Amino acid sequence: MKKLEDLQELISEAVDKLTFPKYPAELYEPISYILSIGGKRMRPALLLMACDLFGGDIDAALPPALAIEVFHNFTLMHDDIMDNAPLRRGQATVHERWNQNVGILSGDVMLIEGYKLMMQVKDHLLRPIMNIFNSTAVSVCEGQQIDMEFEQRNDADIDEYLNMIRLKTAVVLGSALKIGALIGGAKEKDAELLSRFGEYLGIAFQLQDDILDVYGDPEKFGKQVGGDIISNKKTYLLLKALELAGEDQTKELSDWIARKEFNSTEKVAGITAIYNMLDVRQHAENAMQAYAEQAFLALDAIDLPEDHKQYLRDFADGLLVREN
Amino acid sequence: MKKLEDLQELISEAVDKLTFPKYPAELYEPISYILSIGGKRMRPALLLMACDLFGGDIDAALPPALAIEVFHNFTLMHDDIMDNAPLRRGQATVHERWNQNVGILSGDVMLIEGYKLMMQVKDHLLRPIMNIFNSTAVSVCEGQQIDMEFEQRNDADIDEYLNMIRLKTAVVLGSALKIGALIGGAKEKDAELLSRFGEYLGIAFQLQDDILDVYGDPEKFGKQVGGDIISNKKTYLLLKALELAGEDQTKELSDWIARKEFNSTEKVAGITAIYNMLDVRQHAENAMQAYAEQAFLALDAIDLPEDHKQYLRDFADGLLVREN
Repeated sequence: MKKLEDLQELISEAVDKLTFPKYPAELYEPISYILSIGGKRMRPALLLMACDLFGGDIDAALPPALAIEVFHNFTLMHDDIMDNAPLRRGQATVHERWNQNVGILSGDVMLIEGYKLMMQVKDHLLRPIMNIFNSTAVSVCEGQQIDMEFEQRNDADIDEYLNMIRLKTAVVLGSALKIGALIGGAKEKDAELLSRFGEYLGIAFQLQDDILDVYGDPEKFGKQVGGDIISNKKTYLLLKALELAGEDQTKELSDWIARKEFNSTEKVAGITAIYNMLDVRQHAENAMQAYAEQAFLALDAIDLPEDHKQYLRDFADGLLVREN
Repeated sequence: MKKLEDLQELISEAVDKLTFPKYPAELYEPISYILSIGGKRMRPALLLMACDLFGGDIDAALPPALAIEVFHNFTLMHDDIMDNAPLRRGQATVHERWNQNVGILSGDVMLIEGYKLMMQVKDHLLRPIMNIFNSTAVSVCEGQQIDMEFEQRNDADIDEYLNMIRLKTAVVLGSALKIGALIGGAKEKDAELLSRFGEYLGIAFQLQDDILDVYGDPEKFGKQVGGDIISNKKTYLLLKALELAGEDQTKELSDWIARKEFNSTEKVAGITAIYNMLDVRQHAENAMQAYAEQAFLALDAIDLPEDHKQYLRDFADGLLVREN
């Protein structure tokens, strides 16, 4: 089996070689721009990995893998407009560097370019793979809509949160694996199990991200510790704390959330203290473990040689103990 | 052959029956809303008409026809944001009624819903029809981008204008006809000829629109006569006038275009007088006729019974002498 890092590298090279028409420049340059500012290329690499695991030809899986990456970057381009984000990976976002209309329209054509790439599969796979792509794309839009509403609501609960992260991020991971598996020659049943593995793992990974934001090693985490707390992001930890809090703790949490001016260090310390009292870290880790177990159960049921499954287990273990 | 009005009615009924998920409401309600505020349903009706002309089953063509209508309304939803338009067919635009983020994201999911509907064709037609849909969708985005740039440039010329209206509006008409023809059982060659018929006719129709804006009967035209002149829209007439104008006329045109405060009636009269001196109406009508002839040449070459071709000729004649 090929190493994940090698597959990521393969994708990066293929992304660099993607070309788009020169005219109209403002329609196509932003596509090359957003693709050039990087990212880990995890989604397309997973697609290639799945193809490889089932003994498929990685070259045949490359256009659909690029489709997943182009699609992912389309969602980033539009999300950045919706979130009013000035920066993406330290670089100006498209709507900042050009303007908002350019961001909307380049994003639109990028989604179409994603479809064009995804169609580069054998005829017998065209319909099943396009169906997966369609439902994945719808999921991501639904997840983004729920996420936007989420931040404005006071009655959001954990089930909705889990559904939101599933739709917005986990489904794509599962779908990338499923598409790769089908191209690799997997039976529908095994491809579907691998999809579930990816989806559950994606949710577990997101929950870990919530935990690391508060409890991660700042040296390794690579982001500001407590960033979610400072921005009042409704993470699993915050939602669980709001669920478990007594009267005084509810008031203290609400006060911190409502306060417009505050010392960041004090806010992070104050809310973390409540998290600790309520043991929300343990709750989050339990939830994360439960999703990881679901992922491994799906994996166990796949009809693949044991060493191939071990490769996937190692991949999952590596993902879930990361501290960066 | 079925009457075009009956096909438009059929589409309207089918559009009314289209349902989308209830949740998240802000993602899907705008789709039903924009589809409900009407329009002539010309594009999907043309798709059904083409299918019917080749003896196909209209029911089989209904989902792709709806796809074309959903796609068209997606472009309207995003164009309205880009153009900052408060109204569409007398009703609030989506970004006005909800907000801009809703307009972006609902539009995105609408494009995907378009793909889902377009895929409801027989397996042997899936790839060819999706290829047409992809390239059509790209064309419309390119046309919109060129259109937006157009209004800000001083060096725009007629060839670019013709290319812009081709990409933005005419290609979709041709593609709707081609997809319908393929579903109806047409050979690729005939479907392509019908596509060309639609594309040339679409350009001719757009040129007629430019002419009617200035020279149309205000009772029949249904829009404010001279609306393009008042808003400095770079129509065929204006571009031709700028091309042909002598020194004094160029100055007069430029003065009118630059003036921020003016009496609309005087501006329309002033610019129309220059158009008359330069005979731009005749130039525009010649161009329109040339495209119409190209359309009829393509039509002549299609392998269809004479009465079917006559039906299409009558349709084109009706379109090109309309005064509303």
